[in-house]
Order: sequence, then C-alpha cells, then structure tokens
Amino acid sequence: KVHRIALIPGDGIGTEITTAAVRALRQLSATLSTFTLDFTQFPWSSATYLQEGHYMPSDGLAQLKKFDAIYFGAVGWPDVPDHISLWGLILPIRKTLGQYVNVRPVRMLDGVTSPLKGVQRAGDLDWVIVRENSEGEYSGQGGISHEDELHGVATEVSVFTRVGVERVVRFAFEVARGRPRRKLTMVTKSNAQRHGMVFWDKVFWEVAREFPDVETDKMLVDAMTVRMTLDPKSLDTIVATNLHADILSDLAAALAGSIGIAPSSNLNPERTAPSMFEPIHGSAPDIAGKGVANPVGAFWSAAEMVRWLGEDKAADVLMEAVENVTRAGVTTKDLGGKENTEGVTEAVHDIYTMA
Amino acid sequence: KVHRIALIPGDGIGTEITTAAVRALRQLSATLSTFTLDFTQFPWSSATYLQEGHYMPSDGLAQLKKFDAIYFGAVGWPDVPDHISLWGLILPIRKTLGQYVNVRPVRMLDGVTSPLKGVQRAGDLDWVIVRENSEGEYSGQGGISHEDELHGVATEVSVFTRVGVERVVRFAFEVARGRPRRKLTMVTKSNAQRHGMVFWDKVFWEVAREFPDVETDKMLVDAMTVRMTLDPKSLDTIVATNLHADILSDLAAALAGSIGIAPSSNLNPERTAPSMFEPIHGSAPDIAGKGVANPVGAFWSAAEMVRWLGEDKAADVLMEAVENVTRAGVTTKDLGGKENTEGVTEAVHDIYTMA
Ligand SMILES: CC(C)[C@H](C(=O)O)[C@@H](O)C(=O)O
Ligand SMILES: CC(C)[C@H](C(=O)O)[C@@H](O)C(=O)O
Repeated sequence: KVHRIALIPGDGIGTEITTAAVRALRQLSATLSTFTLDFTQFPWSSATYLQEGHYMPSDGLAQLKKFDAIYFGAVGWPDVPDHISLWGLILPIRKTLGQYVNVRPVRMLDGVTSPLKGVQRAGDLDWVIVRENSEGEYSGQGGISHEDELHGVATEVSVFTRVGVERVVRFAFEVARGRPRRKLTMVTKSNAQRHGMVFWDKVFWEVAREFPDVETDKMLVDAMTVRMTLDPKSLDTIVATNLHADILSDLAAALAGSIGIAPSSNLNPERTAPSMFEPIHGSAPDIAGKGVANPVGAFWSAAEMVRWLGEDKAADVLMEAVENVTRAGVTTKDLGGKENTEGVTEAVHDIYTMA
Repeated sequence: KVHRIALIPGDGIGTEITTAAVRALRQLSATLSTFTLDFTQFPWSSATYLQEGHYMPSDGLAQLKKFDAIYFGAVGWPDVPDHISLWGLILPIRKTLGQYVNVRPVRMLDGVTSPLKGVQRAGDLDWVIVRENSEGEYSGQGGISHEDELHGVATEVSVFTRVGVERVVRFAFEVARGRPRRKLTMVTKSNAQRHGMVFWDKVFWEVAREFPDVETDKMLVDAMTVRMTLDPKSLDTIVATNLHADILSDLAAALAGSIGIAPSSNLNPERTAPSMFEPIHGSAPDIAGKGVANPVGAFWSAAEMVRWLGEDKAADVLMEAVENVTRAGVTTKDLGGKENTEGVTEAVHDIYTMA
C-alpha cells in the first residue's frame, strides 16, 4: 500500500526534525515492508515568503488536497511578523482542509523526568487534550481603527458556532470513551466570557447526554492550570477551545518533561481532505541549524500519522523504538541527555535493525 | 488616621477568610496605634441575589465610591450561573471604579514548598504579574444568535483600546523599574490573534521607548507556561491581557505552592475611586463552612491594602508575622500543614503580641 505524504518542513528546526522523521519512517516501511510512503516536499517557508511574497502559491491548498496526509515541521522566523507567517501557512491549512480537531496526547515517556515532584511514573500524567482547531479565538475576525490616535481601538472576535462546538465536543467524547477511565473534563471561562463561553457550556451539556457512559466535569481555564500542576492524576481526556487548549497543551508538555516530545494531530475526521501531523513545538530560532533539536516530538507525530493511515503496527513499532531510546537515556539536552538530533535518530534506527 | 474600608465578604470561604483578615487588621492597628480602620460591611452575595434578584442595589457602586478602599472575599456559588455572579458583583466594580490594573505578586513564602523540583528557596520564584483589568477578553461584548438552531453562533469580542493598553503597560514598566532586576516580560498571542494582539504589541513597544532602563522581552502565552514551569528564575515582572494574566497568575500561584496564598490588588492608580483588594482564590464551595480555608491569601491582600493606604510599616509587620507563621509550619492542609483557619489566624496574632 502506498500512502502519499505532503512534506512541509517549514522554518528553523522544522527542517531538521522532519528530516529525522522522514528517515525514521523510511526505515520503518523498509523494515515492515507492508506499506510505502511516497513523500512530496514543499519548500513553503519564511524564506519563500521573503523572496516571493507568499508562503504558499495561490493553488497551494488545492495541491495539498491530493495527498493522504500532510507532515509538517514548524513555521515562524524572526524576519517575518508571526501573524504573517502563521496566517500564511499553518492556520489556513488547518481551517480550509476541515481539520477541525487537534489531538494532543501527553504522557510521561519512559526515561523522561517531569519537573513536578509528584510525577514519578508513566501513570501519574497521561492525558489526551482535544483542541477545537477551526474557529473560536483564532477566527481571525476583528480589526484595528485609528491605530496611531489616542482613541485607537482593536478588536479580536472569537466566533463559536453550534456546528463547530458540537463536532469537537462529540469527537472528544469518543476519545474519552475509547480510554480506560472514560472521563472527560471540559474547560471554558464562562464566568467572565459571558456569550461565547456560555454557549460552549450549553452545547457541551447537550452533547453530553449522548454519552451517559462517560464521566464529565467542568473546569475554568485558570483553575485548570492549578489542577494540572497540583493534581495531574485526576485528569484524563480534556476538551477546550482553540486558545485555551493551545495554552494548556504547552503547559502539559512542559509538565511531562519537555515541549520537544509532544505530537499534534490536526484531524479531518470525515477524511474529506488530508489531516496534518506536526510536533507541538515551534521553529526554535535560538537552536536552529545546530543539529541539536529533539526529534522525539517529530517521531511521535510521525507515529500518529501512520496510525491515522491505518498502519497501527508501524505506529506501535515506532513508538516502542522511541521509548526504548528515551528509557536508555539517549536523549537531547532538553530531556537531560547529551545527544544531538542525529544521535537520537541513529539510536531509533538501531532498534529496528535489531528487531 | 482613619481609613474607611468597604468590606464585601461575598460567598463561601470569602466570609471565613475576610473574618480572619479583619481580625488580623484590627490587631495590627491596635498594636501599632498609628491608624484606625473603619469597616462597613456589605452583605452582597449569591444569597442576596437569590432573594432579591441582584448582588448590589442600584446605587451600589456609588456607595462604594465613598470609601478609601474595598476589601473583598470571593464571589460565586453553585446555585447561580457563574457569569451572573461575576458580572453582578466583581467585574462591574473592577471596571466602573477605574481599577484598570490588577497586580499579583507571586513569590515563595518561607516554609512553603513548590510542586516544582527546581524551586527550593525564595529567590527561585519571585514574580509580579501586572494584569489588564478593564477591557480585553473581559469586555463583555458579543452575543448569541439562533441559540438552539443548527446555525447557532456566539461571539465574544475582545476590545483593546490604545488608552487601555498604554496605561497598563506604563504601570507595568513602573513596577519593573522599582524592582532590582528592572526586567519586564510582555505576553501576548499575536501570532494567532492578528488584530487585537498585534495592536497590543505595537503599543507596548511604543511605551517601551520611555523606559530604556528596563530590560524587556516578549513571550507567547502558550510558551510562557513552559518558561514559568521550566525556567522560573528567568522571569521577574510580567504584563499581560485580562485573560492571559488570569490564567498565568493561577498557574504562578500553584507553582509557588498554593492558590490559597496569593493576593490580587485591583488598583485605580489615579485614586479617583477606591481600589479593591482580594485573595486570588475563589469561594471554594467544596470546603466552605468548614473553617479550613487558608487565610494567608487574605492576610497578604490585607497587607497590600494597608500599603496602598500609606501604612507601609503595618504592611511589613503583617507580612513578617505571616511569614513567621508559614516558616514555623503553622499552615492549612493545602500547604501541607494541619491547622484550620482559626489556628493560623491565632498564630499570626501571637506574633504581634510577642513583638
Ligand atoms: C504556531 C501557532 C499558530 C500554534 C497555535 O497557537 O496553534 C502553535 O502554538 C500550536 O500550538 O500549534
Ligand atoms: C472570578 C473571576 C471573574 C476572576 C477572573 O477571571 O478575573 C478570578 O479568576 C480572578 O482571577 O480574579
């Protein structure tokens, strides 16, 4: 079976970690020989923007539609204002290709240490964060008036549609139902945000009636950071808005040891267009080009991609190899190790070869 | 000198911890005998709302204007939807009385333990979070259309005015300038929120030119949670929007040991109306009425209040007493101790008596 993958390395360490992941994926398909990955690389990046004035050509999204999945590195570079780079590349892909859920599993990999005293072993922190990925605080609506005047004012409009909230909440309930604890925590800020968030709560409780077998609770986003920090075991599956889940998932990754580990799957659940897989971390200009980026987040998101493509076996083999390597302490600096990107990638390779 | 204080205990543990704080403040003024506090109590709470249909009478805000300061407990109770209680009491006070900055110092009190492995002593985590307190994501603008239809949609409009951003940013720079490290980190999400947050950034950098002696840096709110968790020493003064700082200050309080400690000062810097002082925690229905709430947040916010009223000596004496008590391990359960509210309050009292 051939899976056609659109490869977008993007900026900074995005190119380094996608190179590592592509290598790991090729080895994986060579070892298992049950499927092939056919990569087509797109050079869309901030360098392209600076030369040509756009990240994607005008038919960029149409080109992507032809693939089975998109594998993404990172975008963002100091020379380009961040809102230009993100609205030029990653956000239109998420929004236009129907990738309305973003799934972020966070757990303690073997050998990785949490900054929290209370988190010692894998079971102490094992969450799936389901993020709304198409609207909310990232709707892009709003504007600026009288920018340089004393009466200057800007608005940022969060849009929550019933369709948008229902579908992501329903997806989250399905995720929760598929996990042993069958427990879903929903996060909003409906005490202060009295329109959009109150609507979200209402839709959530309506959908909840369809899932009487899933235990639910509700947290305010500020209090949620406290619970994640002081009582991580009490959480399992989490659903939140685009912005809230963005914040909580970075915190979650840090609490699980490093932002360099966690994957982020932008899913089109109806499969009417390709889904996109990326590590949760960004382009990291400070360490870019040095070959020291942690490739584990890229490996984990590669595993999520092949799982989405139906290759469960391959996903398991890859994640097992990755955890063998972290367990053995073959890690980059952010995880307390001494290896570079290459070293970790080689170590993962060696595991396949032995197997 | 007499300071007239409007006392609003509110709901749940709000009544318990304000009782403790009033007691501590009375002892303080009796001991120092340089000033008197004249308290007027307002029974505005969710119980009032359930009986009378409102939290404050129609001239409530006008009544408050006559005082030198407001001392607030907490509001919110399960019988009333949270957006009703908050928009019925605390939010209109913050917005109408010109309390456009909210200052939240967060540091490790002696004897208190952080959940972070890397945070051992006081200097490891010592921040002041300056929060925009009058607009932004809490503007209250927006609405819901077609609520129960498939095409239902709700909006939540964040409003950022130049006046609003400039004044809080300038305040934050002054705070940073007054601290030894002279360092200010500003937090936004201008990569994804391309109108309001981009405007905020722009105004920030304009104001920054007035403060060349303060070192500045910029973080995205998601990455900020990672930095707070993995590199807390690198931060000092922080300025952020209403929502972002709400989230970050709860996280900060948790990282400094407990949400039960931190104070929150809602300041009207021009003193055209009274400022309001409250602990950062809420009404905590789960432990309300049991006499076990941690009064330290209430003591610390009482100290901030008397400092605002010009009684620096009193503020120092109170905080020294509180830290003597935490150092001795006379604390409530959330701080790992065995005391109740009364026990901690007594212990603080004993320190004055000895002094
Ligand atoms: C790059 C940026 C737009 C992005 C986001 O906020 O969604 C990133 O932080 C993420 O979480 O994927
Ligand atoms: C009670 C609520 C409105 C409030 C807020 O979000 O401002 C609280 O969380 C706080 O931080 O003071």
